[in-house]
Amino acid sequence: MYRLISPTNGTDRKLAAALSTSSITFELIEVYKTQYSNRGEARVVVIEKLKQRLADVFTLGSVSAILDWDQQTYMPSGGVIGRSNQLAFINKLKHEMFISSETDELLSLAEKENHNLDPDSDDVAYLRMARREFEKKTKLPSELVEEIAQTAAIAHEDWVIACATSDYPKFAPSLQKTLVLQRRVADLLGYKTERYDALLDQYEPDMTTAEVRLLFEQLKPPLVALVKKITECGPDAIDTSVLRREFDEDKQREFAESVIRQFGFDFNRGRQDRATHPFCTSFSRNDVRITTRYDRNFLPIALFSTLHETGHALYDMNIGARYDANILGTGASLGIHESQSRLWENLIGRSQSFWKYYYPKLKAQFPTLRDVSEEHFYRAINRVTPSLIRVEADEVTYNLHIMLRFEMEVDLLEERISVVDAPEAWNAKCQEYLGITPSDDARGILQDIHWSSSGFGYFPTYTLGNILSVQFWDQANKHMSGQLLDMVVRGEFAPLREWLTENIHQWGSKYTPRELVQRATGCPLDPVPYLRYLQEKFGDIYRLN
Amino acid sequence: MYRLISPTNGTDRKLAAALSTSSITFELIEVYKTQYSNRGEARVVVIEKLKQRLADVFTLGSVSAILDWDQQTYMPSGGVIGRSNQLAFINKLKHEMFISSETDELLSLAEKENHNLDPDSDDVAYLRMARREFEKKTKLPSELVEEIAQTAAIAHEDWVIACATSDYPKFAPSLQKTLVLQRRVADLLGYKTERYDALLDQYEPDMTTAEVRLLFEQLKPPLVALVKKITECGPDAIDTSVLRREFDEDKQREFAESVIRQFGFDFNRGRQDRATHPFCTSFSRNDVRITTRYDRNFLPIALFSTLHETGHALYDMNIGARYDANILGTGASLGIHESQSRLWENLIGRSQSFWKYYYPKLKAQFPTLRDVSEEHFYRAINRVTPSLIRVEADEVTYNLHIMLRFEMEVDLLEERISVVDAPEAWNAKCQEYLGITPSDDARGILQDIHWSSSGFGYFPTYTLGNILSVQFWDQANKHMSGQLLDMVVRGEFAPLREWLTENIHQWGSKYTPRELVQRATGCPLDPVPYLRYLQEKFGDIYRLN
Repeated sequence: MYRLISPTNGTDRKLAAALSTSSITFELIEVYKTQYSNRGEARVVVIEKLKQRLADVFTLGSVSAILDWDQQTYMPSGGVIGRSNQLAFINKLKHEMFISSETDELLSLAEKENHNLDPDSDDVAYLRMARREFEKKTKLPSELVEEIAQTAAIAHEDWVIACATSDYPKFAPSLQKTLVLQRRVADLLGYKTERYDALLDQYEPDMTTAEVRLLFEQLKPPLVALVKKITECGPDAIDTSVLRREFDEDKQREFAESVIRQFGFDFNRGRQDRATHPFCTSFSRNDVRITTRYDRNFLPIALFSTLHETGHALYDMNIGARYDANILGTGASLGIHESQSRLWENLIGRSQSFWKYYYPKLKAQFPTLRDVSEEHFYRAINRVTPSLIRVEADEVTYNLHIMLRFEMEVDLLEERISVVDAPEAWNAKCQEYLGITPSDDARGILQDIHWSSSGFGYFPTYTLGNILSVQFWDQANKHMSGQLLDMVVRGEFAPLREWLTENIHQWGSKYTPRELVQRATGCPLDPVPYLRYLQEKFGDIYRLN
Repeated sequence: MYRLISPTNGTDRKLAAALSTSSITFELIEVYKTQYSNRGEARVVVIEKLKQRLADVFTLGSVSAILDWDQQTYMPSGGVIGRSNQLAFINKLKHEMFISSETDELLSLAEKENHNLDPDSDDVAYLRMARREFEKKTKLPSELVEEIAQTAAIAHEDWVIACATSDYPKFAPSLQKTLVLQRRVADLLGYKTERYDALLDQYEPDMTTAEVRLLFEQLKPPLVALVKKITECGPDAIDTSVLRREFDEDKQREFAESVIRQFGFDFNRGRQDRATHPFCTSFSRNDVRITTRYDRNFLPIALFSTLHETGHALYDMNIGARYDANILGTGASLGIHESQSRLWENLIGRSQSFWKYYYPKLKAQFPTLRDVSEEHFYRAINRVTPSLIRVEADEVTYNLHIMLRFEMEVDLLEERISVVDAPEAWNAKCQEYLGITPSDDARGILQDIHWSSSGFGYFPTYTLGNILSVQFWDQANKHMSGQLLDMVVRGEFAPLREWLTENIHQWGSKYTPRELVQRATGCPLDPVPYLRYLQEKFGDIYRLN
């Protein structure tokens, strides 16, 4: 997988021997210390050896992902105990191999020889990423990691019961414990200004709480205003009953797969299966799996989750081959990843141009829609309704759900609100942003899995993805002289996919999210285009203008 | 998974501490040497620690099996390189962990304290099996193991081409090399009388070449005579064209799954999928997977492969829970395993009693059979025809294919026939035993994958399975006062499955195959009942008597 130097003379043979045996760090260090006058050569040995080691760690990660995929798709229920043992063991091996003194020594040695490298080279990016991950993994003592895992296991169980019975006090002690541990995590990982920075950074490197707050403050008032104007149109402004007719599941799958094939999803390098919760996972750039779920009586579920996961999959499939089994061979951040899924799901899949091309095909697949006009269908899939459940929300209100959660997370972490008072705070924000109050906690503060899995800091990346999707779209459109929607009307997606690959996908995580956005769009993260997109699109749909 | 002693006093706390940390062999040895007056306690610590270690090895084995299952069933073609890296890495870890000095020390320590144990205890069996596997894995130097793997990779490629073009000389050099290596393997593993013993022992522990030869000599003449008598009835004695009508694949699956559910295949602890080659694999007793393939125009393929693999699966599902993640938690040998698959496939699935119950259901599922009588169908699925291809052979001629291969393997290994002369020898035996000569090597010596994968010593286990299936059946029938076929006529399989679990499945590999057969049937391996079964069944079908 990695190119090794070929053994042509005495020195190189030693180098090659050093590379070919396993666990030879000490030998290698000796070789490095005493025998090499040519430090460039030694550097190559050390970084290649580091890459080999981390490629093994990466392989264990992909094995873990396969076990998880199988558990979510095909595993019979009886397999659950065996599977949790298999997953725990592989993840333990992976962790131990990564934080070992051998990795530490190789990384430090490689960094020592780093100074002569081109700062834009892959190796510099590689070492930055390796150091970042190594520090993150080693700053947390293994007892804490274990306590978090145990707490999450209990929290998850409590949450499932609390959710089913809308019994927040059942979940509150676990949430309290989770917060105590997350504060310790933040303190150990370190941060400049506020604790939440450290948690956010796990999902969105280099993004700060202050930046998110500023972005959200720019978005919130105009979004609340937009939702209010739309709500004033009344609940009957758009009829969605046509989406609730009967749609054969196999035909749903056939249609969605024909679309994503045209998007560029390569079924020789990926597949789609059923799972309770749609997701995308990747075992290598040549084996990327997405899942979906079907509702015979609600067309959007499978269709839009398929387009969404395909956005993630196209990213994973088009990362540069030079990053195979390399720590740079992943997306740059969750926000960047989400920008891709939202772009294909919403900017394309929920656009009028897309349905100009696809609606006749959809009607041919589902004659039940024969009396439904394209305009009717387009408006139905874009209806905006303030609702209680985030995962069912439309494009406009979705972000308000995220802002609410971000504010709650920061306040809980900083103890500005207590666990006991949290449901009340949640409901008040819900009323303020969406104009509705949850009837119970199951449809309020208990609805998301994230807090029960210690996933604090994750939520903002959803809205970051939305914002970025429009920035990337606009830049691609500029590159295509404003012809992008015309291409979509003709079912031509290759130029867009190629632009995304060229400017985003291929780079993996070589660049930080900030650098990547700047390089791809020429601008920093900016919520204005996204806001304008929402106001124009939904202004048209609801005839507000 | 394993019960640990609870820490109730100072000594026990040390024991518990010794058990709870990883990589503590040296510490443990010191503790053992200096601090324990109670050797029984020390023994428990040592063997539990050994079991923990080998449970980790077992876990890696099950992970490897999951990766392999996915490759055979769902993996997109692009995933092949990534998958071979993942498999190679997991298998290497497994091998290194198993042959490590830590395993060696724990095993030797445990054996030292072995003398006071009940010879029939699980621990004695455990240590015997651990020693056996450890010796086998450590007797072969890793360079040889690697050379075998490399040779097999090339041999497999050569074989695929040779097979497609019926070009034996293309495969001959690889076969020659494989034989050289297999002779070295046999010499390193050791044997009493002849080299083939060592190879056979890998698949059928404690079975000797001489025993197999004796069994086969008892079977061969009467089988050849039976085939000859049947052949004299003429090719039109039985009409099989009814099996070649059109059978919808989903309906085939539904029917076969309804049968195996009744056999006792637990779909909460297993599943069936499609694969090019049917197989059974198990990740734990609670997650056992079988595969099959479908031919719309030939009913027996999917049906009988499903029943066959279910025989394997019932064995794996019913091994005692006390052997979870334990080296005793596998079948006793390939021959014993095959006896279970042949029993459910042939003694049940191809019996007249079975179809008395199931034929009306089959007809209801496939109205195309409405003009076909039960008798006609029963005779069709049991037609005996000497044919060139082993995997397509019927119950009677199948064993002649195996005998031919066994004799060829022994002669090739002992250099009594050369690689160059092998096709001629093959064809001569084929003519002698089956009365036909292969038209080309693709349908002759090149037809099986085994030799290209270094699988010498494997073939005899198929016929051992056939022989044993009847011995087990007879014993179960005796236990049920001769009512077994009456139960089958009523679709009652639980009593038979329970007898098999009680007498075979639950024991895993606690007993050697020889011990297990003796315990279950009260007799040693004996080909006479099997021969009688074939003569009676096919005597009736062909009205020879």
